[in-house]
Amino acid sequence: MRELLQVDPGTPLDLAARPADERFGWDREEAEAATVRRAERLAELGTELAADGRRALLAVFQGLDASGKDGAIKRCIGPLNPMMVRTQGFTAPAGEELRHDFLWRIHAALPGRGRIGAFNRSHYEDVLVPRVELGRPASVWEPRIAAITAFERHLVQEGTVVLKFFLHVSREEQAERLRARIEDPHKRWKFDAADLAKRALYDDYLAAYADLLRRTSTPWAPWHVVPADRKWVRNRVVTEVMVETLEALDLRWSDLSPEVLKAARAQE
Amino acid sequence: MRELLQVDPGTPLDLAARPADERFGWDREEAEAATVRRAERLAELGTELAADGRRALLAVFQGLDASGKDGAIKRCIGPLNPMMVRTQGFTAPAGEELRHDFLWRIHAALPGRGRIGAFNRSHYEDVLVPRVELGRPASVWEPRIAAITAFERHLVQEGTVVLKFFLHVSREEQAERLRARIEDPHKRWKFDAADLAKRALYDDYLAAYADLLRRTSTPWAPWHVVPADRKWVRNRVVTEVMVETLEALDLRWSDLSPEVLKAARAQE
Repeated sequence: MRELLQVDPGTPLDLAARPADERFGWDREEAEAATVRRAERLAELGTELAADGRRALLAVFQGLDASGKDGAIKRCIGPLNPMMVRTQGFTAPAGEELRHDFLWRIHAALPGRGRIGAFNRSHYEDVLVPRVELGRPASVWEPRIAAITAFERHLVQEGTVVLKFFLHVSREEQAERLRARIEDPHKRWKFDAADLAKRALYDDYLAAYADLLRRTSTPWAPWHVVPADRKWVRNRVVTEVMVETLEALDLRWSDLSPEVLKAARAQE
Repeated sequence: MRELLQVDPGTPLDLAARPADERFGWDREEAEAATVRRAERLAELGTELAADGRRALLAVFQGLDASGKDGAIKRCIGPLNPMMVRTQGFTAPAGEELRHDFLWRIHAALPGRGRIGAFNRSHYEDVLVPRVELGRPASVWEPRIAAITAFERHLVQEGTVVLKFFLHVSREEQAERLRARIEDPHKRWKFDAADLAKRALYDDYLAAYADLLRRTSTPWAPWHVVPADRKWVRNRVVTEVMVETLEALDLRWSDLSPEVLKAARAQE
């Protein structure tokens, strides 16, 4: 599943041509049952990651408004032991954050070794927003792209696995979900007047994402395009990619040294 | 003064051949008086940096044990308004720090825009200690060198000036200062039994520093080799380099917008 969804840095990426309603031929009920099973496996692997203590996992969730970032974190990170998880959402920088470089608050919020972190939006917003919404020149956001790939490379070198998910939603599905935010009294709190303006930017955002994903999908920190029009497909895919990634790590339950074992047995 | 002391990345650096007792032909009393004058100018520039609000200054102090890092910070950062200064010492990483990549605690401690930060030891220890003291293979510390230059480049791009000082002390002066730590009851608290082992590593440290300074002295974040056998020379040099660096920044007292000015005057 991982390789199927990864963005190839060498090839131009046309997101509009990628079906956001892809279902991989799956039956919904079967897929949902598989997600439950794999989520159990994910929880086990989370414990192994903690026991191993040498690696961390950072899962970055990006996508247009209403693409399901909150839902993906709830469904796919939720099954993990919360003691081993650190989630962080990033809104427009404010206060002390504005006094610092854009990676400062990102770095501070990273999961430590043995932990899993989930970012709802991330340092990628610091390229996208200046480019698409603020109309800032490339001299503002272009150097940030190189800074991001160097930063992620450093994290990976030091033991953090960086997994990046782009939740790909179609214009029609996005419109439907934003409409629901207004009409459903239990979703209304999520609506923001700024959403209206962002809807008009669908094409601009998709083009900026396509360029950014391709240029920041690296061998050490690849992007995955997740078809996100169907929530059950999204959950199945994200859970599976996380399981595959952790299984590939060759995690070990750390051994106690012979001295510690001997001392422990002497106390029995 | 800045250019005189900067390490040229293109040329091998032989620290042993650089006189640690260099005095630039200065008279001590005159130099001390000049340091006092320039420290006043530095304090003014610190206020301008805060008023300007667009840039930060990070001064990194590295050097062998007893090279005078504490003293340099006390004398050369001390004259600044403490509200605008953030100092941080870095000892061996412990606790939560060990769960993170080596740049995590560094990033968190950086000065924000409008502020001056001083680091007593830094991320450079994460290359030096594994290499010289722990005998770790190059695969551990070599990738950190590239990570450091990329990290510093990012900081500079985002508005932080990165000034790096290597306080160069001779073997004889180091031995004398470490002896004083034992014999002077007011200095004894600074003595650590590990100092004895480190003294034996003088040559190894100097060679590792020479390699590291040359490779991490970049156009955006150059290293300065400060002759540090004489404290008054060290203070004169560091103060001067900081003044020259801030003067080159073209700091501006930020303007109030015409609307704000009009509103303020209307209230008078």
